[in-house]
Amino acid sequence: MSMSDAARTTTTRTRTPPKRTFSDVELDLDQLAESFDVPPSTSSSASSAMAIASSSASASSSSTFASPCPPHPATILITDSPASRSKATLLLTSKQKPKHPHPRTSMQHPSSSAPIKVGVLGATGTVGQRFLTLLAAHPWFAVDALGASPRSAGKKYKDAVSWKQSTPIPQGVRDVVVRECRPENFAQCKIVFSGLDADVAGEIEEAFRAANLAVFSNAKNFRRDPHVPLIVPLVNPHHLSIIPQQQALFSPALTSGFIVTNANCSTTGYVIPLAAMEKAFGPLECVMVTTLQAISGAGYPGVPSLDILDNVIPYISGEEEKIEWETLKILGGISTKESEVTSADGQQVVKKEVKTFDMHAAHPLRVSASCNRVPVIDGHTECVSVRFARRPPPSPQQVREALAAYTPEAQALGCPSAPCRAIVVHEEPDRPQPRLDRYYQDGAGVSVGRVRQCQVLDVKFVVLANNVSIGAATSSIINAEYAVLKNVVQL
Amino acid sequence: MSMSDAARTTTTRTRTPPKRTFSDVELDLDQLAESFDVPPSTSSSASSAMAIASSSASASSSSTFASPCPPHPATILITDSPASRSKATLLLTSKQKPKHPHPRTSMQHPSSSAPIKVGVLGATGTVGQRFLTLLAAHPWFAVDALGASPRSAGKKYKDAVSWKQSTPIPQGVRDVVVRECRPENFAQCKIVFSGLDADVAGEIEEAFRAANLAVFSNAKNFRRDPHVPLIVPLVNPHHLSIIPQQQALFSPALTSGFIVTNANCSTTGYVIPLAAMEKAFGPLECVMVTTLQAISGAGYPGVPSLDILDNVIPYISGEEEKIEWETLKILGGISTKESEVTSADGQQVVKKEVKTFDMHAAHPLRVSASCNRVPVIDGHTECVSVRFARRPPPSPQQVREALAAYTPEAQALGCPSAPCRAIVVHEEPDRPQPRLDRYYQDGAGVSVGRVRQCQVLDVKFVVLANNVSIGAATSSIINAEYAVLKNVVQL
Amino acid sequence: MSMSDAARTTTTRTRTPPKRTFSDVELDLDQLAESFDVPPSTSSSASSAMAIASSSASASSSSTFASPCPPHPATILITDSPASRSKATLLLTSKQKPKHPHPRTSMQHPSSSAPIKVGVLGATGTVGQRFLTLLAAHPWFAVDALGASPRSAGKKYKDAVSWKQSTPIPQGVRDVVVRECRPENFAQCKIVFSGLDADVAGEIEEAFRAANLAVFSNAKNFRRDPHVPLIVPLVNPHHLSIIPQQQALFSPALTSGFIVTNANCSTTGYVIPLAAMEKAFGPLECVMVTTLQAISGAGYPGVPSLDILDNVIPYISGEEEKIEWETLKILGGISTKESEVTSADGQQVVKKEVKTFDMHAAHPLRVSASCNRVPVIDGHTECVSVRFARRPPPSPQQVREALAAYTPEAQALGCPSAPCRAIVVHEEPDRPQPRLDRYYQDGAGVSVGRVRQCQVLDVKFVVLANNVSIGAATSSIINAEYAVLKNVVQL
Amino acid sequence: MSMSDAARTTTTRTRTPPKRTFSDVELDLDQLAESFDVPPSTSSSASSAMAIASSSASASSSSTFASPCPPHPATILITDSPASRSKATLLLTSKQKPKHPHPRTSMQHPSSSAPIKVGVLGATGTVGQRFLTLLAAHPWFAVDALGASPRSAGKKYKDAVSWKQSTPIPQGVRDVVVRECRPENFAQCKIVFSGLDADVAGEIEEAFRAANLAVFSNAKNFRRDPHVPLIVPLVNPHHLSIIPQQQALFSPALTSGFIVTNANCSTTGYVIPLAAMEKAFGPLECVMVTTLQAISGAGYPGVPSLDILDNVIPYISGEEEKIEWETLKILGGISTKESEVTSADGQQVVKKEVKTFDMHAAHPLRVSASCNRVPVIDGHTECVSVRFARRPPPSPQQVREALAAYTPEAQALGCPSAPCRAIVVHEEPDRPQPRLDRYYQDGAGVSVGRVRQCQVLDVKFVVLANNVSIGAATSSIINAEYAVLKNVVQL
Repeated sequence: MSMSDAARTTTTRTRTPPKRTFSDVELDLDQLAESFDVPPSTSSSASSAMAIASSSASASSSSTFASPCPPHPATILITDSPASRSKATLLLTSKQKPKHPHPRTSMQHPSSSAPIKVGVLGATGTVGQRFLTLLAAHPWFAVDALGASPRSAGKKYKDAVSWKQSTPIPQGVRDVVVRECRPENFAQCKIVFSGLDADVAGEIEEAFRAANLAVFSNAKNFRRDPHVPLIVPLVNPHHLSIIPQQQALFSPALTSGFIVTNANCSTTGYVIPLAAMEKAFGPLECVMVTTLQAISGAGYPGVPSLDILDNVIPYISGEEEKIEWETLKILGGISTKESEVTSADGQQVVKKEVKTFDMHAAHPLRVSASCNRVPVIDGHTECVSVRFARRPPPSPQQVREALAAYTPEAQALGCPSAPCRAIVVHEEPDRPQPRLDRYYQDGAGVSVGRVRQCQVLDVKFVVLANNVSIGAATSSIINAEYAVLKNVVQL
Repeated sequence: MSMSDAARTTTTRTRTPPKRTFSDVELDLDQLAESFDVPPSTSSSASSAMAIASSSASASSSSTFASPCPPHPATILITDSPASRSKATLLLTSKQKPKHPHPRTSMQHPSSSAPIKVGVLGATGTVGQRFLTLLAAHPWFAVDALGASPRSAGKKYKDAVSWKQSTPIPQGVRDVVVRECRPENFAQCKIVFSGLDADVAGEIEEAFRAANLAVFSNAKNFRRDPHVPLIVPLVNPHHLSIIPQQQALFSPALTSGFIVTNANCSTTGYVIPLAAMEKAFGPLECVMVTTLQAISGAGYPGVPSLDILDNVIPYISGEEEKIEWETLKILGGISTKESEVTSADGQQVVKKEVKTFDMHAAHPLRVSASCNRVPVIDGHTECVSVRFARRPPPSPQQVREALAAYTPEAQALGCPSAPCRAIVVHEEPDRPQPRLDRYYQDGAGVSVGRVRQCQVLDVKFVVLANNVSIGAATSSIINAEYAVLKNVVQL
Repeated sequence: MSMSDAARTTTTRTRTPPKRTFSDVELDLDQLAESFDVPPSTSSSASSAMAIASSSASASSSSTFASPCPPHPATILITDSPASRSKATLLLTSKQKPKHPHPRTSMQHPSSSAPIKVGVLGATGTVGQRFLTLLAAHPWFAVDALGASPRSAGKKYKDAVSWKQSTPIPQGVRDVVVRECRPENFAQCKIVFSGLDADVAGEIEEAFRAANLAVFSNAKNFRRDPHVPLIVPLVNPHHLSIIPQQQALFSPALTSGFIVTNANCSTTGYVIPLAAMEKAFGPLECVMVTTLQAISGAGYPGVPSLDILDNVIPYISGEEEKIEWETLKILGGISTKESEVTSADGQQVVKKEVKTFDMHAAHPLRVSASCNRVPVIDGHTECVSVRFARRPPPSPQQVREALAAYTPEAQALGCPSAPCRAIVVHEEPDRPQPRLDRYYQDGAGVSVGRVRQCQVLDVKFVVLANNVSIGAATSSIINAEYAVLKNVVQL
Repeated sequence: MSMSDAARTTTTRTRTPPKRTFSDVELDLDQLAESFDVPPSTSSSASSAMAIASSSASASSSSTFASPCPPHPATILITDSPASRSKATLLLTSKQKPKHPHPRTSMQHPSSSAPIKVGVLGATGTVGQRFLTLLAAHPWFAVDALGASPRSAGKKYKDAVSWKQSTPIPQGVRDVVVRECRPENFAQCKIVFSGLDADVAGEIEEAFRAANLAVFSNAKNFRRDPHVPLIVPLVNPHHLSIIPQQQALFSPALTSGFIVTNANCSTTGYVIPLAAMEKAFGPLECVMVTTLQAISGAGYPGVPSLDILDNVIPYISGEEEKIEWETLKILGGISTKESEVTSADGQQVVKKEVKTFDMHAAHPLRVSASCNRVPVIDGHTECVSVRFARRPPPSPQQVREALAAYTPEAQALGCPSAPCRAIVVHEEPDRPQPRLDRYYQDGAGVSVGRVRQCQVLDVKFVVLANNVSIGAATSSIINAEYAVLKNVVQL
């Protein structure tokens, strides 16, 4: 671990609850490192790390965490859909909690105690609205504070917002007075979700982190930061292991403040099946993806109707670069090497472990993206073709089975917002379709279809992801749930 | 030429007008062969054939055929648009005709004599409606007979059709009585355009061919026939050289009957820039294309609105196979080899030249297509990525210049429905867009944009083609114009 | 309550009765007539009947039936939305049942015993799909048999259907084998819901009625039948009182077979606020309505996308006539007069009461409808203007209050599929909107907004109704629930 | 004709006059008043004025001005469409000019001399783009100066504009440098068209008028000004007679500066058939109109796509009030009364004629509008119902005939941008439709269909108007053409 004991003990963590001792934290953090199965001395490729992480996760899963979803044999393709996740999850979660008496879980399980107070930054925006809708029914989190621009601050939420969801404003926040996005206004919160626009997110999120708040951000500002994990919760939550290093950059090191980002919506959707493929068949060499992205991805007011009715816009500013870069950070592993640094007083040379996102370096991966906006409200459709390093490559049928069997750690651990099935594999030739498939499991999983041979690369397929759910707020929330379960968030 | 003189002289061509002598035809057909630059003894790849054909065509163009379009230096990119083709073409065509006194042209130019009578099969369908709209203003062709199903036959056209165009039914056909699709009902026609549905096109088109009518078909039935050319008029009209062989299959050989098909709408749009690239930079090795296709491609009633509003359908039955196969036939050349055949009486072994579509065999080309239906009315958008055989590959800028400079033979020859610019190259990052670019040049050209490096193959770009114009009826009509200019159609 | 205490106390039906005798039915039917408060000897206008029915209903409601919805003072406008109906209803319904020990309710409540077996005719169509989706979570009804065309019969439902809902096929019916629509295949069912197309509905529904099955039909075939009630469940369920007369037409009279229809989707949506206005302010004189109807109203495949993308179709065949006629039947009352009929044996002259739908005759009502199809998937928007008989007319504010206060009997009685709020009144100037409001309360209520003065008539407003919910299957189901609660259905 | 022979013969203005003196203007303006057939001493209702104006116009038309459109008997309904206006008009206009040697026409016809220089204010906006597209092919007007915001000023037009038309930027303006909207920058222009936004239009248009420029404005700012005419060119161009009074408000009186506005797009479309009805059948008493308006009516960026895809917005701010008020000003007449005013020096009491828009006062007209935004790109559909003063009212068939026969003065006079047919009457039950009918005659006329009995008022129908053509820029241009023909614009 990069966070030195010395540094930690000198920090007076007034925010952490007294009931847990410091060793609890240590232990948990160690456990966290272990559960990632990333031995400090070896640089590990993403795929092996994931494979190990997943297998350990599923082992723990079977023994300790009962998934709220009905079991399904991994080798049987799931081509259509049982009762939707949300109802199942929420009902079962509350009912089944008593049935899972694992001590560590119980201890960690936040819902066993008071709800965890959370704040939402950018609460009046479209991502903010989605955060509030999801959090209104959350079993652990309770919205305590809403932040928005100074223009909205001081107004009741219902008066400040131009609500654009098809469900009403949650009762609990209708009359909450919106605050300015300053840390002191969120002092009661353990976690802050950020749906801020990129032009203000940078400064505000930094201020919140500096104030020792855990920030889960949907904004792009810190995605490329070498100390901030870029996490698709169904793919690489183990990248949370970089957090101590992020906190140690501060002097004194932060005790509970950090920033975790989730990925661009179009990246998120398609890396989930890519991760499943790498887990099953080893590294990919090439990926080509052409996206057909929904208008909600551009926020509100976003795309003018005159630009998109009866039209396609074959360009989304910056999007292709995001996909091509973020894929490498997410699918890549974290390498750890010792480097000698001179101590602060210049007297000593200290050996220190430094973690670096390896950007899939062990197996260079080339990604080419072409992004299009289409007149669809929600749901990004992506046509993907991949080439595997392994020769011969897996058959389409093998890929289908691997996708259907994919069980991410967040799901195995029991994150309440994780989908029962990360990837639904359709056998029908004309699926997935945004309008029919985007709401399945409340949009927390992805749908894959048309897995078939590619004449140029190896295998091609179509993936659909709900850009406003797993592509945005839902990812932030699962990331937070995972961080809570792993004790990365200080309760 | 495969059509032997003997065969020809024994045929009594009662349908050809007396004013031209037989030697005229012979000469023209020889010229046709020459202009294709396909030496009988060598198999030629498409690209070299095209390069030569084009250069000879443009040479002849500069000396003899004045293009109706204003000149534009090929190396200057055309990023936006002058006065639209249609007006320019039609006005200038009629005015400038006297200025071009080249005897052969004048002689061949059908508009100098009476209009050429044409028929339209499937006249009440969407492709048929488009044929009629285009032919209403055609400088050479006059619609003489309309064919449709027995259900429509006997009715006035205006009563039989469910007209779906945004321009009214052309006056000239409103009250024309629709006939059954039988050759005897089209006896006055020199040319028949077929917009028939595939389920009936096969039998009917064969009957028309057997009755010595020249059939230009938009249907898919004969596209894979080894004796029927599959012609995208801005790419491979020289494939018309297979016609004599097609006619010779009949006994007695057909004198004027033949079938020419044009390609699937999504194939058509993207092979035009591919052809331009091969012409400039030599053969391609790999092509990946993801299409975003308009609903009009499915005809009427076609796609139910419940399936496509706020939706994408990531599947169009048979479309990917068509693209992957048709591309090879169109971009490939025609190989000629001598084979020994036993004469009809079994007494002799005769050497005979046999032409074969080489399917791009000299440089195997792999094509991978992913087809999507999107809620756009007209205009197929296609995201294409290519790999060249040549190393290093051309730069995006070189590709842009080659595309803008591309002058197909049909354009150089002065086919009145050919676009002034086969390919408009956009510099704006967000173009082409269906709604803004599909009507440029009445949809007879294609628009290309976003030419840029591909991380996986070499170069990627977006192409937009109007599927109901160049993707359908306009192609058939240019094919017919070209065949008239080359004397393949017997007037 | 109209049901006399005596009747109640003498009845020993604790929970579920044993097989009820025919006299039970008679009794129940008498009670039914009484409960409608329509004195046999007087012709009553719809409004007075409804006023009385509703007031008695709401009285009974407050004293006996606990609505599963949170209370809201009728004079406070409901301008936005609490937790959605479905979750609230379903959760609370099951949980709160024990809390409402009213004997009659408990007794009648079918869910306290075995579920009621129901069948669905036209199960593979869009209305049928909607029936199955709604019935999958129904507290009383259990789908027992699926009927469809002979083409589908014999197949598993999942193989016979082209499923077009955004939720998956309910597990319970996926593998059910579809049957032909013959009564003997539905012998176990007490209730049959019909989503049949009009071209086959007539004959099939008649056969089912003749086989003594209770048919709740969404088809139009019997809407104008003088013995078949046309019921919008939030408006005129008391029209069920015609059922005995319908059954008496048969010889022998039917004991449990009958047909109940619900109205055209666009009629349904706008008569609900009209009924609320008549209840509060007396009869209307004139109604003008212009509809903007969703494509789902036309079924599947329904409207071709080429007809509706970027378009409006200002015509829906037969729709205006339906609205203009159905409104009168629904808002009108049932008049009863004695007529002398000769007995079957010709020996006697018998006096017999004959019920007639009065078509709003006491206060003639003129309705003018203009119907348009718009590119909206679900949700009919209707711009309505009305003139009251009463002078001066109520103010817009009075109308708003009356709409918000409207509590239909089906809601008061506790029909589980009835909405908590029949009419949500929006204060925002730009609501209701289909996309934002159609799913509120699972589409079981309607949304009204923009209540304002009309320069030509008195008051105008906009109403939005979910055409596939309250406009179709939901209405049939509430009608059946109501009929069960009123013992019109023989269990 | 109202212009006396004497006046004409004494005028020596062969072709273009030399600089005209002020008395010329006076004379012309008097002639103008006469030509409107509005005797100074009598207040005339709109309908009678129009009837007279139109009959005189059509008389002159038949004898002197050859319409470029083919003749059609007024009593034969025009149910479908000949060759579109634009091509016919433009071709014929240029060709036929020599054939019509009427001296006054030749004299007035501006295109016989140098083109009239015009400016466009708000040139980069959507209305401005439409102005430029239309003016690019205009036979009389030549765009000389482009005005836009200071942000755009100084840039070439192609660099300043975000071009959103489906035809390219006209060559003539691509490289024109945009200027600030100050009169000195438009000194060479005789006419200025304003497509300015309302927030800046007021001040700028006033400044241009004060600088003696003729302003034809599409903005709403001066529509309610009692001295500014609100002109729908196919209805009330005779309202130009208010101009001298507008000019006389200035001291010294303006010689050539004035402001003419055209109406709101939704008002424009439906008052054309209303005017035709009043002309044929006398005054209307009540009008109810429900609009289904296209998104382009809101400009760019205008309606966010998230608000309108799969949706209807039943509200357009201020629109209903505009329709209800503007209809009265447009359909009303101009009343004239003498009033005594004290002269400027206070010494005299002068009698002066004062003209007032009578707001349809002689026959009070009640208008009720309900406005909706629908997902249509161009073309406002309006469902209209009317009640006539005259009893019995005309039959639907009589109304159809009157609509088809309606020939506005602007058309009769030969305004080059006027449609050949002001109103096309469809017999098909499902027309007009925006996508099929909006481009007919380049959108310069309107399409009416479904004329039928109304159960509440007398007659109802559907009208479709292209909101970006006749609803905006085309109206301004026809107004200017008319004003040129009537010498209201000083050339």
